[in-house]
Amino acid sequence: MAIVSLRGQGVARGYAIGRAVVMDAAVLEVAHHRIAEHEVDAECARLHHALQVAQQRLSEMAQALPTDAPAELGAVLNVHALLLADPELEQPALKLIRERHYNAEWALTACGSALGEQFAQMEDAYLRERATDIRQAIERVLMALAGADADILCAAHRMAEHHDEPLIVVAHDIAPADMLHLREGRFAAFVTDLGGPTSHTAIVARSMGVPAVVAVGNARTLIRDGDQLVVDGATGGVIVNPSAQVLDEYRQRKQQFLQERAELALLSSAPAVTLDGVAITLNANIELPDEAAAACRAGAEGVGLFRTEFLFMGRNHLPDEEEQYRAYAEAVKGMAGRPVTIRTLDIGADKALLNEPAVATNPALGLRAIRYCLAHPDIFATQLRAILRASAHGQVRILIPMVAHMHEVHATRQALASAKAELQARGQPFDDQVQLGAMVEIPATAIAIEPFAENLDFLSIGTNDLIQYTLAIDRGDTEVAHLYDSQHPAVLRLIAQTINAGVRYGKPVAVCGEMAGDATLTRLLLGMGLTQFSMHASQMLEVKREIRSAHSNALRAKVAIALNRAERVDLKAL
Amino acid sequence: MAIVSLRGQGVARGYAIGRAVVMDAAVLEVAHHRIAEHEVDAECARLHHALQVAQQRLSEMAQALPTDAPAELGAVLNVHALLLADPELEQPALKLIRERHYNAEWALTACGSALGEQFAQMEDAYLRERATDIRQAIERVLMALAGADADILCAAHRMAEHHDEPLIVVAHDIAPADMLHLREGRFAAFVTDLGGPTSHTAIVARSMGVPAVVAVGNARTLIRDGDQLVVDGATGGVIVNPSAQVLDEYRQRKQQFLQERAELALLSSAPAVTLDGVAITLNANIELPDEAAAACRAGAEGVGLFRTEFLFMGRNHLPDEEEQYRAYAEAVKGMAGRPVTIRTLDIGADKALLNEPAVATNPALGLRAIRYCLAHPDIFATQLRAILRASAHGQVRILIPMVAHMHEVHATRQALASAKAELQARGQPFDDQVQLGAMVEIPATAIAIEPFAENLDFLSIGTNDLIQYTLAIDRGDTEVAHLYDSQHPAVLRLIAQTINAGVRYGKPVAVCGEMAGDATLTRLLLGMGLTQFSMHASQMLEVKREIRSAHSNALRAKVAIALNRAERVDLKAL
Repeated sequence: MAIVSLRGQGVARGYAIGRAVVMDAAVLEVAHHRIAEHEVDAECARLHHALQVAQQRLSEMAQALPTDAPAELGAVLNVHALLLADPELEQPALKLIRERHYNAEWALTACGSALGEQFAQMEDAYLRERATDIRQAIERVLMALAGADADILCAAHRMAEHHDEPLIVVAHDIAPADMLHLREGRFAAFVTDLGGPTSHTAIVARSMGVPAVVAVGNARTLIRDGDQLVVDGATGGVIVNPSAQVLDEYRQRKQQFLQERAELALLSSAPAVTLDGVAITLNANIELPDEAAAACRAGAEGVGLFRTEFLFMGRNHLPDEEEQYRAYAEAVKGMAGRPVTIRTLDIGADKALLNEPAVATNPALGLRAIRYCLAHPDIFATQLRAILRASAHGQVRILIPMVAHMHEVHATRQALASAKAELQARGQPFDDQVQLGAMVEIPATAIAIEPFAENLDFLSIGTNDLIQYTLAIDRGDTEVAHLYDSQHPAVLRLIAQTINAGVRYGKPVAVCGEMAGDATLTRLLLGMGLTQFSMHASQMLEVKREIRSAHSNALRAKVAIALNRAERVDLKAL
Repeated sequence: MAIVSLRGQGVARGYAIGRAVVMDAAVLEVAHHRIAEHEVDAECARLHHALQVAQQRLSEMAQALPTDAPAELGAVLNVHALLLADPELEQPALKLIRERHYNAEWALTACGSALGEQFAQMEDAYLRERATDIRQAIERVLMALAGADADILCAAHRMAEHHDEPLIVVAHDIAPADMLHLREGRFAAFVTDLGGPTSHTAIVARSMGVPAVVAVGNARTLIRDGDQLVVDGATGGVIVNPSAQVLDEYRQRKQQFLQERAELALLSSAPAVTLDGVAITLNANIELPDEAAAACRAGAEGVGLFRTEFLFMGRNHLPDEEEQYRAYAEAVKGMAGRPVTIRTLDIGADKALLNEPAVATNPALGLRAIRYCLAHPDIFATQLRAILRASAHGQVRILIPMVAHMHEVHATRQALASAKAELQARGQPFDDQVQLGAMVEIPATAIAIEPFAENLDFLSIGTNDLIQYTLAIDRGDTEVAHLYDSQHPAVLRLIAQTINAGVRYGKPVAVCGEMAGDATLTRLLLGMGLTQFSMHASQMLEVKREIRSAHSNALRAKVAIALNRAERVDLKAL
């Protein structure tokens, strides 16, 4: 047994020691052939039936979820069911069967690939990952067409009965539906060849506290069923058939990690206050309305960032006001009176909406977000009305992305006033005092922050884009990703400057980008005077621990010196 | 005669009143057909001969240039000849004839389109325009293949004999070779459907002082031979068959403009000093080595920006050290002891060099410029050695583009030290004191400018890219170009901050982007404390006039107030 050391991307922290259960390829071999004219009707019926079966199975699974299942899992199952229910998937596939005499499998994969392709080309890392959802949902239908059992983990599960040691799933990729089986506690970790930090596999793993390593690339080739594995979900390391010494080392690390986690759990009801008494607000970032409940359970004081792109993606028709209203209202009700910050549509171009790939040479520098919304006043007005109506159910704040010019703020205020007037004319209730804030994610906004701080109700720093533009680095471009640096002195100066302006103008300033959820940067952000953090619920306890052990004033003095010299801040010295 | 008012882009200022001479389409109809096997050798010979003829004609024209012809014109003729001499154009075309039995015209246009396509996709506006050079050079060969007279303006010229009024050329596009005829003074302006501010048409027109309006789109459709035209080269307006009143108005404007220009010409030997005695350095931006001479004539104190991309574009092999050395040395000698600032390669990705389109999702945020050079140490070392060798002939400064991290500066210093060591080992002379500076064109660099100002010998602000990244706007993207704003308070703060750091650390700071050559912004830049401007030679006199009428201290006080408030500066109040 050769000792092999693999490395992927660690996306859910923790250690696991166990035996490998290697899954079959999740990608099904699809037989492509043309059918005869007289078979067309039957083939259409076969596809329609399979779509129904797959949706039915997904709904059943969602309903059968144990009450303590992660909310993310149920949400994802529903999303997959929705994708399959969309006539924009079924109709083009039926057309291919009728006009080109494709068999159902071929027609479906062709439409699915086209749909997936759009997502894969998107700017936003989160939306790019949604290509995987489409593939996984399609695979479920293909299995229904083949009459196969849809749960690829069933086999593994049966195997598991024969082992005494914990089992570690090694797979090409894992569909969220299949992750249900992980709930039964027999799987200690998972390792996949595909995936990224925002894939559902990663999100669900984090919410379950199961270590996960994704993007290994060749795990299924190099690991055999029954191999002993050590998985380090922080560094992304996977050791195959470790020596006794390595095993001992990792047993100790695991022990220590579990102890720390237990201590961390004790913090869930503790206040987020620094040693010198500065109270910090911890809010949650959510993607789907029903994550609001999980955010509450994790102790979030509100939702700092509710992304609304999901309603708009991968479909040929726009969601109407009613559909949007229901989604926003669900999140607002889920937060039970706590503030919910809804970000207006941050989408690349109408091409993305209309199911065509974007054509801009540099989409990141193109017609995105508020620029897109102001160029499409009907789409914007519909969303604003839906958000305003949701404000009747709780505390709602409106957050506009990619603002760089004051005239964009003025135009937004006008659009908001028109939306209010229309609701008033209709007699529909809304909160007239709904606050308007802006994302600070373009360098210009942070550099000339004063008029924004003066004229808006709150600011929220989106560190991911702010870093990207400040350094002129596309983080998704592997050739320059190593130059992406969240601690570049210029980035820190812009963040500090924005926080200071908030203090001067008496307006709350939050950080809602990835830096806020990274516990290794908590002391740095406190040192810049930040008092509002917004992050995924799963990151809150670690950040809170850092806050509770920090002395805010001492940190501020240290950080000020480095910022003043445009030097890198030594995190270890904080 | 209907009065029609057209609008294009004014690229060379001045007024003209005259009769339209509408040119035939410059794009030739090319007959595409396949040849027989036995015709292959003859067809190859035909193509080779036509390439020779076209090159020969271009060289003759370049040599026959009157001594007072604009240097740009000769340079462009040589560039076209070089493009045609490149085996990377001829060889693939011959291959198409041999392997696919294309006729010579088809083979040539296919290869030319592929080559042009690469340029058309480039980041840099200047390089994008070079697609036109390729098309124009190819057209010359097509005319040789057809046995046609290569000078499309000949017909117009003959027509001109019959008119008493000045003539205005209206064309689809004008090849630089054809612009020779404009030298004879019979043409008072030109109007084209294609082109942009950095097209050769525009550059040559400016250097000749002939008004030009490009990118009209439909001029050749709406204007007929003999129509009376009024051309406003500043606003881009073209009035067809104007009323007597309009004619009078424009005759007056023209008179006034000519008078101003005459007064301006008197400034060419006057010093660039403000009313309160601040001496300003005016340097030239050049693209080709032989523009150095024209820069000297225009009164440039040095070359502030010598772009070196031209040597690298549209070819499958890299220029060797010797070829680069000759080009750089020519510019250095041309400046006769005045400083020449050579910018190292600012290119998008090796795909552009290797004749493949770039693949990055956001090339502007990708592996460009110094990032590219540090990732390709051999290419960088060759260029650094060539520049160092040129430094033996005069005062050379090395300027690195797209710097955002201090580690890039350190890596460049190391590469420079290695290049020096190699030249020393070879016994080749160079200036050991050659200065190293950086472009300030990424927001991060300007925001955290101190270490750059401390560790480099000089700084040069590239306003075009700086604005693009600071505002997250791709100026080439028509959907957002209206948001590109050189006077956004954030942009002005970054420029002012960089200039101040230069003063604090005793390092010269120049602006070499478009803002420097825009006389409407001269007072603003003086108000930010700028003392070094670098621009195209044709813009110098107007900028100098502004400088000589400005009171530097008064401007600084006014600008400081607006900058401090992050307000827009009112140019009219300066």
